[in-house]
Amino acid sequence: MKLIVIKIGGNIIDDDAALQSFLKQFAALDGHKILVHGGGKIATAIGSKLGIEANFINGRRITDKPTLDLVTMIYGGLIGKNIVAALQANGCNAISLTGADGGVITAVKRPVKEVDYGYVGDLQENSVHVDTITKLLDAGMTPVFAPLSYDGQGGLLNTNADTIAQELAKAFATIMPTSLIYCFEKNGVLGNPADDTSVIKKISGADFQVLKDQGIISGGMIPKIENALTAVNKGVQQVIIGHAADLAALIKGETGTWIQ
Amino acid sequence: MKLIVIKIGGNIIDDDAALQSFLKQFAALDGHKILVHGGGKIATAIGSKLGIEANFINGRRITDKPTLDLVTMIYGGLIGKNIVAALQANGCNAISLTGADGGVITAVKRPVKEVDYGYVGDLQENSVHVDTITKLLDAGMTPVFAPLSYDGQGGLLNTNADTIAQELAKAFATIMPTSLIYCFEKNGVLGNPADDTSVIKKISGADFQVLKDQGIISGGMIPKIENALTAVNKGVQQVIIGHAADLAALIKGETGTWIQ
Repeated sequence: MKLIVIKIGGNIIDDDAALQSFLKQFAALDGHKILVHGGGKIATAIGSKLGIEANFINGRRITDKPTLDLVTMIYGGLIGKNIVAALQANGCNAISLTGADGGVITAVKRPVKEVDYGYVGDLQENSVHVDTITKLLDAGMTPVFAPLSYDGQGGLLNTNADTIAQELAKAFATIMPTSLIYCFEKNGVLGNPADDTSVIKKISGADFQVLKDQGIISGGMIPKIENALTAVNKGVQQVIIGHAADLAALIKGETGTWIQ
Repeated sequence: MKLIVIKIGGNIIDDDAALQSFLKQFAALDGHKILVHGGGKIATAIGSKLGIEANFINGRRITDKPTLDLVTMIYGGLIGKNIVAALQANGCNAISLTGADGGVITAVKRPVKEVDYGYVGDLQENSVHVDTITKLLDAGMTPVFAPLSYDGQGGLLNTNADTIAQELAKAFATIMPTSLIYCFEKNGVLGNPADDTSVIKKISGADFQVLKDQGIISGGMIPKIENALTAVNKGVQQVIIGHAADLAALIKGETGTWIQ
């Protein structure tokens, strides 16, 4: 058996036509698969109506208790359950999970140093409980993860979706061949951000260093590629970053950026 | 193997100390168990802040699309996931579900007659998919149901929690001895609503008719007892209505009202 772990970014979540098209393609994939979804802008929009303002320090979001409740509602409830309903309608027996469900992803609340990030979870070496997730896969179900982990003491923790996808892939790579696919609204890692056709086909660790030094890779793409390279180094067979619009081509490696 | 299906009402959800005490007792129960939770007042409070006003016709709530999204957030997300996190902290391997997760409870959108109730699900004879739920139980998990079912076509449906509990119990009663416990903030069915000690110990179908004719049982208690009697007639071994505060005594039949 092999496994595909696919992460879809917030911009796809925010675009219902793109999301439904993606979910249809995801449902059609054969074999064991796991979906990890990001948050999208809806949490910020609903939070604003509820008087829960987004709070950033040094560009990083702070998860206070009202924000944790907000993301639990939106990520764990509204987005997760609607994705599952849409996948079910496409013949995929999906089940939405946070890290607390089945105790499948435990994490440590980020220690307070210069900044108190609040209810944010950092995943550890043993955070992903492969046995329980495997039981769901073996029962014919497709886990759909919201970006929330569990502190082991009754609390949920807001957790980066890329990190959850990466840790799931790394943990499963120890027991079966595993691919990790990051889907977003771009065609891959671009050599020129203004040119959607300038996809860099392959990036190795050495390439990454050069591209970073040249300033071609910058900003939020840096941690994404660092995560991807870590996954490769930990035995994930295939790591690809690309557009959510044609999933089959992306998985075959016909489009997107291969990290290797 | 035997199964206990327990439903907790909205007033317990709204009282955090009562809820945490109940969850600790629930976690300690041996054997297969399923929890079904109601909604509570928080959906109305948050809906009001979001400009989603509760809309009633003839005393029945109408679930329009914004209300469906609201209850998906609150029941499926905030309440369900926090109950699961609390149960996990008490050593119970809980997993929160709507009817869409694993496709476990399918329903029919209520037909429009005099009133259009909107996105409300009516359960049918074959609504509960026992096989999938059994796989979760056999994997050592405790399903926690939000009062939401699935229309089979990509949509969630708002569904009465008492009904979900009853249908789960009836479906499982065909394959294993099953108990159904309705927990709420009263000691049982009361002979005198003003006297909390006036618990009616046992109610049969014949008793119910008399108590209803005498006006002793009225209002929302009528459909609750009708549901309970139906469950008994369909083979559920034990149906009890009582207080959430002492679950062990309630299950043993030392407190509460037995429907038989």
